[in-house]
Amino acid sequence: MFLSKKRLAHIVFESDDRASKTFDLVLLLLIFGSIIVAILDSVAELKIKYGDLFFFLELAFTFLFTLEYFLRVWLTSKTWKYVSSFYGIVDLLAILPVYLSFFIANTHLLSVVRALRLLRVIRILKLGRYLAEADFLRESLKASAAKIQIFLFSVLTIVLIMGTLMFVVEGPEHGFTSIPVGMYWAIVTLTTVGFGDITPATALGQLLASLIMLMGYAIIAVPTGIVTSEMAKRRKPESFESHKSCTHCGFDALDPGDHFCRKCGSRTD
Amino acid sequence: MFLSKKRLAHIVFESDDRASKTFDLVLLLLIFGSIIVAILDSVAELKIKYGDLFFFLELAFTFLFTLEYFLRVWLTSKTWKYVSSFYGIVDLLAILPVYLSFFIANTHLLSVVRALRLLRVIRILKLGRYLAEADFLRESLKASAAKIQIFLFSVLTIVLIMGTLMFVVEGPEHGFTSIPVGMYWAIVTLTTVGFGDITPATALGQLLASLIMLMGYAIIAVPTGIVTSEMAKRRKPESFESHKSCTHCGFDALDPGDHFCRKCGSRTD
Amino acid sequence: MFLSKKRLAHIVFESDDRASKTFDLVLLLLIFGSIIVAILDSVAELKIKYGDLFFFLELAFTFLFTLEYFLRVWLTSKTWKYVSSFYGIVDLLAILPVYLSFFIANTHLLSVVRALRLLRVIRILKLGRYLAEADFLRESLKASAAKIQIFLFSVLTIVLIMGTLMFVVEGPEHGFTSIPVGMYWAIVTLTTVGFGDITPATALGQLLASLIMLMGYAIIAVPTGIVTSEMAKRRKPESFESHKSCTHCGFDALDPGDHFCRKCGSRTD
Amino acid sequence: MFLSKKRLAHIVFESDDRASKTFDLVLLLLIFGSIIVAILDSVAELKIKYGDLFFFLELAFTFLFTLEYFLRVWLTSKTWKYVSSFYGIVDLLAILPVYLSFFIANTHLLSVVRALRLLRVIRILKLGRYLAEADFLRESLKASAAKIQIFLFSVLTIVLIMGTLMFVVEGPEHGFTSIPVGMYWAIVTLTTVGFGDITPATALGQLLASLIMLMGYAIIAVPTGIVTSEMAKRRKPESFESHKSCTHCGFDALDPGDHFCRKCGSRTD
Repeated sequence: MFLSKKRLAHIVFESDDRASKTFDLVLLLLIFGSIIVAILDSVAELKIKYGDLFFFLELAFTFLFTLEYFLRVWLTSKTWKYVSSFYGIVDLLAILPVYLSFFIANTHLLSVVRALRLLRVIRILKLGRYLAEADFLRESLKASAAKIQIFLFSVLTIVLIMGTLMFVVEGPEHGFTSIPVGMYWAIVTLTTVGFGDITPATALGQLLASLIMLMGYAIIAVPTGIVTSEMAKRRKPESFESHKSCTHCGFDALDPGDHFCRKCGSRTD
Repeated sequence: MFLSKKRLAHIVFESDDRASKTFDLVLLLLIFGSIIVAILDSVAELKIKYGDLFFFLELAFTFLFTLEYFLRVWLTSKTWKYVSSFYGIVDLLAILPVYLSFFIANTHLLSVVRALRLLRVIRILKLGRYLAEADFLRESLKASAAKIQIFLFSVLTIVLIMGTLMFVVEGPEHGFTSIPVGMYWAIVTLTTVGFGDITPATALGQLLASLIMLMGYAIIAVPTGIVTSEMAKRRKPESFESHKSCTHCGFDALDPGDHFCRKCGSRTD
Repeated sequence: MFLSKKRLAHIVFESDDRASKTFDLVLLLLIFGSIIVAILDSVAELKIKYGDLFFFLELAFTFLFTLEYFLRVWLTSKTWKYVSSFYGIVDLLAILPVYLSFFIANTHLLSVVRALRLLRVIRILKLGRYLAEADFLRESLKASAAKIQIFLFSVLTIVLIMGTLMFVVEGPEHGFTSIPVGMYWAIVTLTTVGFGDITPATALGQLLASLIMLMGYAIIAVPTGIVTSEMAKRRKPESFESHKSCTHCGFDALDPGDHFCRKCGSRTD
Repeated sequence: MFLSKKRLAHIVFESDDRASKTFDLVLLLLIFGSIIVAILDSVAELKIKYGDLFFFLELAFTFLFTLEYFLRVWLTSKTWKYVSSFYGIVDLLAILPVYLSFFIANTHLLSVVRALRLLRVIRILKLGRYLAEADFLRESLKASAAKIQIFLFSVLTIVLIMGTLMFVVEGPEHGFTSIPVGMYWAIVTLTTVGFGDITPATALGQLLASLIMLMGYAIIAVPTGIVTSEMAKRRKPESFESHKSCTHCGFDALDPGDHFCRKCGSRTD
């Protein structure tokens, strides 16, 4: 129990020996456990039966995550950088709602309190730390950001104009009570979700709806095209097994079928 | 206030100094403000409370956009080209409905008037001026136009035949009251929107519906394939970092693996 | 009116001079007109008002298409090949239902008669003759046929197993009255159509439904991948403008940026 | 009827002569027949009429599949490897439920019995044996497994957070009775299925729903991109026509543009 601060920092921030791997595993289990308790607590029948147990578990989880937060703040050499980083904010937000809910518990704002306490499900974002591969997706999306913006702007333009037209054509008597509702319907339709809570009833409305559906069907190709070509560009060279190295100069990106080294020209088989 | 006509034209049409950038920004805010007022005005509860304010704001916006339109007409050297251009027409359509609604205000055509006034939401298209990147999407779509036509024709063929079959099989008693309604349902289904306002009730109808759904699922691949391959073709060469420059002639589009400059032939590594 | 048989065949089968182009145009208009009449005739209100007109028009269209059919049979040098070809069968099916409906008119099979007469909408397939580009799509689909079969088989396996599970889990009381209905629901869900006419009500059913939805979401990538890679393979080399030829040996697939011919090594600029 | 064990094994495991092909065909028909009987037996009207026939057929099918299973166990040289293989387990699961249902028939667990007996539809998986091409899909999916995991994790993160927010915002009075139900709704919406059994009724809920729908619309591009680029990587070299052979050594995978054989280095044009 008398670990040096440096050793403790290693355990918390790295994951290359038994102690640090155990720390990561325990944290993973705590995150999953805490989320499962939050989910079960929301089911009315379970809350009636096990409400007290859930409450106790939640307090325990919050205490442990608070401990983890202060450990990280204390152990890191760049405190402010951690506190203001993405995971620093997530770590804080994962404990704050529970404490806040205690302070406002005596007011009438019961629904706000409930909302605040439920925000602890964002603890799932803490898992991102253990996903090295997530960078691939994040970078692909970032590189496509400009095109995705244009895409979203186009979608919103169609949604605004179509939502307005449907409000005019169908009107409140068929559920299109305002332009925002019309726009909500246009998004539901353009994204091919189609809840069916609001549907066009007039012939002209159905014609406009058909148009927007065909547009949505064609437009879905655009983000796909953007991400696919971005991913194709970003592909790393093939994996180790599918390559061979030159026995002469060591150049290691030869295709298995190459008979001469592409770099030094010596025979490779 | 005593700007030369040339200076004024610069402010309106360019965006490279403070004055012209301010003009663009003010216009952007006016467009957003005007659209938000139109949207809020459509919500019944808000109209009752703030109807007069919205009406006044709408008049102010319309006056300013009218000013902008006449400024552009006056300042441009090619008046007719501007008036008949895409943005010239959009600029005009953005102010016309409001004026028209005044002239027809005394008639019984109240719904037409309402429709006309709401058409001012097309002001959102004025934003297109500020989206240089939009060209990329527009060109990709234009280049794929021929294939998209074929695609739409195939879709409409399936829709016509399936809509007719469902009208025959299910009939008016299950909501398929005519071929146009059957076609509307076929579009809703083929595009995977699936409102659920009309659904097949007979076994044969459900079998046909299953067929059209699987077709829709397979067909969605076609526009995606078209746009993706079009975009891949249109890609600019890779970004700066993944290239190296020739140390001899400075040519900077060499692949990292190139051993001789493609331009001058001198050794690069 | 006294055209040679050879001249008439040219007008009917070719489209390279005024007379043959006019013939094609008239036929196009007849096809569109005949389909529009069939569609309008299915709308109850219009049938009551204009039923007689629609009936007369339909007779006229059928007479003209019959004339066209016999013209083609008479004029072609390979009669049997035409009659048994795709368009030969479509041309026949486009007229047959109307005649058949006369013969069975006196029986009680009114709904069958109605169905038969409506099959004339397949006349839309006659338009395929004028779509040279359609070959591109057809070939892409044909080349992917083997993979699409595997894909469909996988989908149907999931549908059968999921439909059975949902029938067992939810049972008739929640609308899953039999395995075929469960399979219909599984197709509606897997293809992301989601009518909502049948929905899971139990927790286990909703879990299974979530699974099938996520599968559908992931599986949709497969046909897209198949068609996209098939289309990419099938792309013709770039258009004329983006290439240049070697002035020495005439090799014509040089990139515009190449400074030396890839074939003979002589300088190209 | 007096076949050697070796000959019998050939018939059962190979498919290169008449006897073994006939065995495969009979098995295929038995699988299809057995599945069709299971499906028809689930339709209440048909069960009343033909229940006894279905029961008899099911017994016959089960007897024959049991025979097949023991044949395979007896004939194979590596009994344990077969029994523990994927198809060994499927073969066993295809007969076990029926026998189990006899043993539990006298208990009150009628619904469990019904469930068990219906599990025989997994016999469809036995068809996998006859699909050589299925490997292509399986390998593509396996190679993308890591990325698909990340993708599913991202989806579940969005689903958890959005499901919780909707539970807080809409609450039980609009059908969002718990976080699990909210997550079910989020999956229905994100995957663009959109049953419409639960829909947001408040303005804030509709705004959140719009967000999740647009996210789902954009995210669908990710699995498509993954599979497409994986498939493109995995493509076999182009077909015969687009290649040329070396006139010296006969190596036949040269690109039409190659001037020297990649294998033996002799000039090819």
